[in-house]
Amino acid sequence: MSPTAMASGDLTVVALSGGIGGAKLALGLKRVLPPGALSVIANTGDDFEHLGLTVSPDIDTLVYTLAGLSNTAQGWGRADETWTFMSALAALGGPGWFQLGDGDLAMHVMRTHRLAAGETLTAITEDLAQSLDVGAAILPMTDQPVRTKLVTAHGLLDFQDYFVRQRAEPAIAGVRYAGAEAAEVTAAVRAVLSDPALAAIVIAPSNPLISIEPILAVPDMRDAIRRAGVPVVAVSPIIAGQAVKGPTAKMMQELGQEPTAANVLERYRGLVDAFIADPTDIRDLEGQGEGVTLIGANVMMRTLEDRDRLARLVIETAASLVDGAASRTGEP
Amino acid sequence: MSPTAMASGDLTVVALSGGIGGAKLALGLKRVLPPGALSVIANTGDDFEHLGLTVSPDIDTLVYTLAGLSNTAQGWGRADETWTFMSALAALGGPGWFQLGDGDLAMHVMRTHRLAAGETLTAITEDLAQSLDVGAAILPMTDQPVRTKLVTAHGLLDFQDYFVRQRAEPAIAGVRYAGAEAAEVTAAVRAVLSDPALAAIVIAPSNPLISIEPILAVPDMRDAIRRAGVPVVAVSPIIAGQAVKGPTAKMMQELGQEPTAANVLERYRGLVDAFIADPTDIRDLEGQGEGVTLIGANVMMRTLEDRDRLARLVIETAASLVDGAASRTGEP
Repeated sequence: MSPTAMASGDLTVVALSGGIGGAKLALGLKRVLPPGALSVIANTGDDFEHLGLTVSPDIDTLVYTLAGLSNTAQGWGRADETWTFMSALAALGGPGWFQLGDGDLAMHVMRTHRLAAGETLTAITEDLAQSLDVGAAILPMTDQPVRTKLVTAHGLLDFQDYFVRQRAEPAIAGVRYAGAEAAEVTAAVRAVLSDPALAAIVIAPSNPLISIEPILAVPDMRDAIRRAGVPVVAVSPIIAGQAVKGPTAKMMQELGQEPTAANVLERYRGLVDAFIADPTDIRDLEGQGEGVTLIGANVMMRTLEDRDRLARLVIETAASLVDGAASRTGEP
Repeated sequence: MSPTAMASGDLTVVALSGGIGGAKLALGLKRVLPPGALSVIANTGDDFEHLGLTVSPDIDTLVYTLAGLSNTAQGWGRADETWTFMSALAALGGPGWFQLGDGDLAMHVMRTHRLAAGETLTAITEDLAQSLDVGAAILPMTDQPVRTKLVTAHGLLDFQDYFVRQRAEPAIAGVRYAGAEAAEVTAAVRAVLSDPALAAIVIAPSNPLISIEPILAVPDMRDAIRRAGVPVVAVSPIIAGQAVKGPTAKMMQELGQEPTAANVLERYRGLVDAFIADPTDIRDLEGQGEGVTLIGANVMMRTLEDRDRLARLVIETAASLVDGAASRTGEP
């Protein structure tokens, strides 16, 4: 495989992603890949039921970002959103801690209604994404409910309670993915991972604890990724000891790990073939590759060009691994 | 009882009402009565489930109207409403035939969520109305689902399908109140109807077929009204052969009845003690009172003053019937 082959439209890419940070790279991948080449396996561990509605924050962030509907200034939600529902809800004594935009509600209402009718989250998400012309497959990691919970001194907290209502302030002693044991990799996820055209699997720069590892906690997900037999390239969500966004660094520290790119790599050890991180982080990792190709690059994505550049680097890295492996094994 | 006693705060009034037309008179009654004196038994026959949400159009119209939140220009829904949800829903391929305003959605979401948690529609409505400072008790006619359906050449149509989606265009051959047999008068409705302070029961100028008769179809509702032993005063929704609003005239004609105040009175015969209609309609009714006091008055409510004036007339009429009865029976 070469970047040229990639651009020809013959090859496909699968990304594992959480919300905001991962969606930025997913957007870059969608932009630099041929139409329809990208599938994103989305974390559903932070899905929750609020006011009777099933909310899937990471799926929605991916959908809005890839459809060009996201509020880039705010970092979440939809552009041109209005908030009349929340005002009316407050007047009715309803809960105000989780913001539901008026336009955003359409996703939640449609999803909830169709789930109640017995459709799968995968089928519903495919339909909604298609309606919005997302241009990539957004695949829930599973159709069974998996709910990330945080072990704290106040007991086990639901993810959104911890993350939004309590602003990730409580110290955590552990992370649980409730329901993961009973979850199954979907047929759609299996299909993209076993597609003969698959050229690379990308682990987006999302929070390992609450975005990537819930995906990997679905039984057989890790094996399905390894069985794909293509390069797995991860991008660090940590830059020089700081999370680009969100509580990744704080959470890692509370779990007794320095919030370093090195520790992110440790979490992905055995799964990834290449690891892309800030050059300073890669220098610190020198000699610790142990079979993982280490690439130093600017992984901060401020502009659209940053997203495209990093997406190209990810694809080139995967291509170089195949070429390298081909050379090593003497294949043409 | 006299209008003066009524205004003293000792006496209460119960109104039976559908949506828009009935809510106008309910607002007048609330305004001319002492605080807390008015209870409205609301039609729930046009409630329906849409996108998984339980929508109660007449309850909401009453709540918004009495809380001063209604869109008086439009005739339904909330003032200062926005429509971002509907735009987003359309983009997702969702149904556009029933308009759900962004603020209005808060009512539907809260109601649906609390119904799913096992609360009664009565308890939920009380809470929501209290939050919005409605200043009157809005009492669902029953906590069991009753659904008005129309017999048409295309089969049995759900009310909102007929009324909103098909704009009341199909000719009707009958009206059914599905679920009515199994419905029960609520404790709250029984309480206001058996309150010793009750001075009058008002049948608002709503469509008899789809607003008032669903209420009367709840088993024991008619008897509970008669047992109250207070004057029952109805206001005609028909003025000179025309419905003030909506398809009342058309529906009555299709059911083989001239759309006249006289025929409305016939439908309420045995239940009402007084009937207020346009003076021209009352002239046509001459000699057909048969125990019903006929009052000619302007029943068109265009302004707030119209509502107050008609509300005062209703109360005075009820008071005069008690005074009259008292005179007739020789009580002081």
